[in-house]
Amino acid sequence: MLRAMQLPEPFLPPPRLLMGPGPSDVAPSVLHAMSRPLVGHLDPTFIKMMEEIKTMLREVFQTNNEMTFPVSGTGSAGMEFCVANLVEPGDEVLIGVNGVFGTRMVEVAERCGARVVKVEAPWGRIIEPGQIAEALKRGRPKFVAIIHAETSTGACTPVEEISRLSHDAGALLLLDTVTSLGGCPVRVDAWGIDAVYSGTQKCLSCPPGLAPVSLSPRAMAVATGRKRKVQSWYLDVNLLAAYWGQERVYHHTAPITMNYALHEALRLVLAEGLDARWRRHEQNHQALKAGLAAMSLELAAQADHQLWQLNTVRVPKGVDEAVVRKRLLTDFNIEIGAGLGPLKGQIWRVGLMGETSTRANVHRFLSALGRIQNDLGRQTDVAAALRAAA
Amino acid sequence: MLRAMQLPEPFLPPPRLLMGPGPSDVAPSVLHAMSRPLVGHLDPTFIKMMEEIKTMLREVFQTNNEMTFPVSGTGSAGMEFCVANLVEPGDEVLIGVNGVFGTRMVEVAERCGARVVKVEAPWGRIIEPGQIAEALKRGRPKFVAIIHAETSTGACTPVEEISRLSHDAGALLLLDTVTSLGGCPVRVDAWGIDAVYSGTQKCLSCPPGLAPVSLSPRAMAVATGRKRKVQSWYLDVNLLAAYWGQERVYHHTAPITMNYALHEALRLVLAEGLDARWRRHEQNHQALKAGLAAMSLELAAQADHQLWQLNTVRVPKGVDEAVVRKRLLTDFNIEIGAGLGPLKGQIWRVGLMGETSTRANVHRFLSALGRIQNDLGRQTDVAAALRAAA
Repeated sequence: MLRAMQLPEPFLPPPRLLMGPGPSDVAPSVLHAMSRPLVGHLDPTFIKMMEEIKTMLREVFQTNNEMTFPVSGTGSAGMEFCVANLVEPGDEVLIGVNGVFGTRMVEVAERCGARVVKVEAPWGRIIEPGQIAEALKRGRPKFVAIIHAETSTGACTPVEEISRLSHDAGALLLLDTVTSLGGCPVRVDAWGIDAVYSGTQKCLSCPPGLAPVSLSPRAMAVATGRKRKVQSWYLDVNLLAAYWGQERVYHHTAPITMNYALHEALRLVLAEGLDARWRRHEQNHQALKAGLAAMSLELAAQADHQLWQLNTVRVPKGVDEAVVRKRLLTDFNIEIGAGLGPLKGQIWRVGLMGETSTRANVHRFLSALGRIQNDLGRQTDVAAALRAAA
Repeated sequence: MLRAMQLPEPFLPPPRLLMGPGPSDVAPSVLHAMSRPLVGHLDPTFIKMMEEIKTMLREVFQTNNEMTFPVSGTGSAGMEFCVANLVEPGDEVLIGVNGVFGTRMVEVAERCGARVVKVEAPWGRIIEPGQIAEALKRGRPKFVAIIHAETSTGACTPVEEISRLSHDAGALLLLDTVTSLGGCPVRVDAWGIDAVYSGTQKCLSCPPGLAPVSLSPRAMAVATGRKRKVQSWYLDVNLLAAYWGQERVYHHTAPITMNYALHEALRLVLAEGLDARWRRHEQNHQALKAGLAAMSLELAAQADHQLWQLNTVRVPKGVDEAVVRKRLLTDFNIEIGAGLGPLKGQIWRVGLMGETSTRANVHRFLSALGRIQNDLGRQTDVAAALRAAA
């Protein structure tokens, strides 16, 4: 041994309520699924399960795209998958930037050699179709990319009009649905989305580790008709198609237990039904918003475009947001998120995603926040907030 | 809903004995660890656990490298991590190719823009130091790369002499330890390895989904002193260092439950002790080899360089290897692997990795194989084979 090392104790996580920007709470049956014994990644039973995952993902994405499967990485790997497979060096792409994830996609695309045109909006506001129309007059991008649900700001950009404009200009549409999928309508085929990625740890309420993706036949034609190979071997859809397709050509070793978890999580999503699930997210968002209003707290994202699953709450003047966040965690076992970038110190990010989105959790959060506010000398009528959120 | 879809049943995996090239069997306490409730990836308790994982990985890699952590992808992502961070377009690199994984690394390096010089050996044989010395006379590569344990052939290439030659020539040494780590000696610092990656699903007996990596200070100097950004945002060590380091700058969302599993798996490795674990792998390999010999079956890899954890068995003339493999799986619930590439149809790959490496499993496999041989009309004295493997 190199050094005297004391063996760490087994890790026993505290019982957190996960109300941050993800991961969200995970259902017991999903946790349990991961404790089942492993099979090989080429085992006939695993291959059958992979097929079921693909079928269920198509349902959740509302698409018939054959090429629909989970990339073996987290949501950011899904972003890189979509961009790296579509971009060749020198390609022009148009990216809507209104938060962390649009900013990140610019970075990813530039590393793929793209010439990036940015369409920007202040953090917290949506990308307007008019902005995209204007930008499309001045270029001919290979794709237009939008962050559907900006997890860093709480804004939900409508997609349909932007999709129509993009296609009219001969561009593909790439959509980030990391935080939206499973929590609000995402209709890949009806909206004409060509490339879409998500994460498992948000409104699907599965642990992080996989990135569901889907590519339309048009996107696949671009990816398979490239002049140069995809710069990432790990994320090359031409190789992944043979692994996840009928041929089962060995590529990498799929994360077995993560796929167990995703299978069960998708089952729960579809057993509830997408419409019912979206309605639940909307209703609990409304309850939270009403409760916050009763405490004189307001949401930061653009009115009429506020995400149901990720609520950005303006920190009141004179309040140190980190103190409140830390007390929520240590005294109440509730995790919420901090603001990022220009919103640092100005907002709290309160997730109501998947399993976390229950009325009981809304009340638990309001009650805890109210008590902390009262401790800090900010008189708060907790009972009134709970009534408002009933 | 797009189509009438019947909800799949919960996935209940059959009780396989995993004796293929990975994944290997996983200990109950590791499976159980994944069923614990989630915490956030920036939770103080998770950060403390990440630190423990890094400390334990250093021990298992036998290194003091600060930059030692699990990449959030499978072993192949670990390969791409090492190559993509070290290579800039136009760089010359020297890669030993004696199986699938050396072939793969050539592909990965070329996609990073490297000029690749290959040093080749027949599949099943090792890369000889003399070959490397010869090649180093004709070029000045940035790194020399070797697959320590070629999972496709069962050969274990000795590293120390190649490392000395590489450093004398001013090159870094990159080592693939996907199948070796935890199953036979891997001494990163003593051997002077600059960049190393592994997978979790082989001799660490953790489910697939993470790729432990370690970079020496010299490799880090190369990665941080690059002229061009790393082409992969997801795998850029300059960003990952800030996430896995003291700053905890948000990059991606680490796969929480996979890290729970790795934490527990590393605890088990270190509780057993590396020396004892290596000895166990060696002894069960010897037992298997003796039992196979008693059945007139021999190993395919080069004598004196056969892996303990992955045994490639020559398929006897006249035997359809796929028929035997399928019967092992369906009648005995034992998974073994097929040959790949030029070895397709010629070998079986029998893993004795991590939890799978027990004397009882050696016996169970020999007994099942003997019965199948007898059913196929190849007279086999199973009792003699078991005695030989006692």
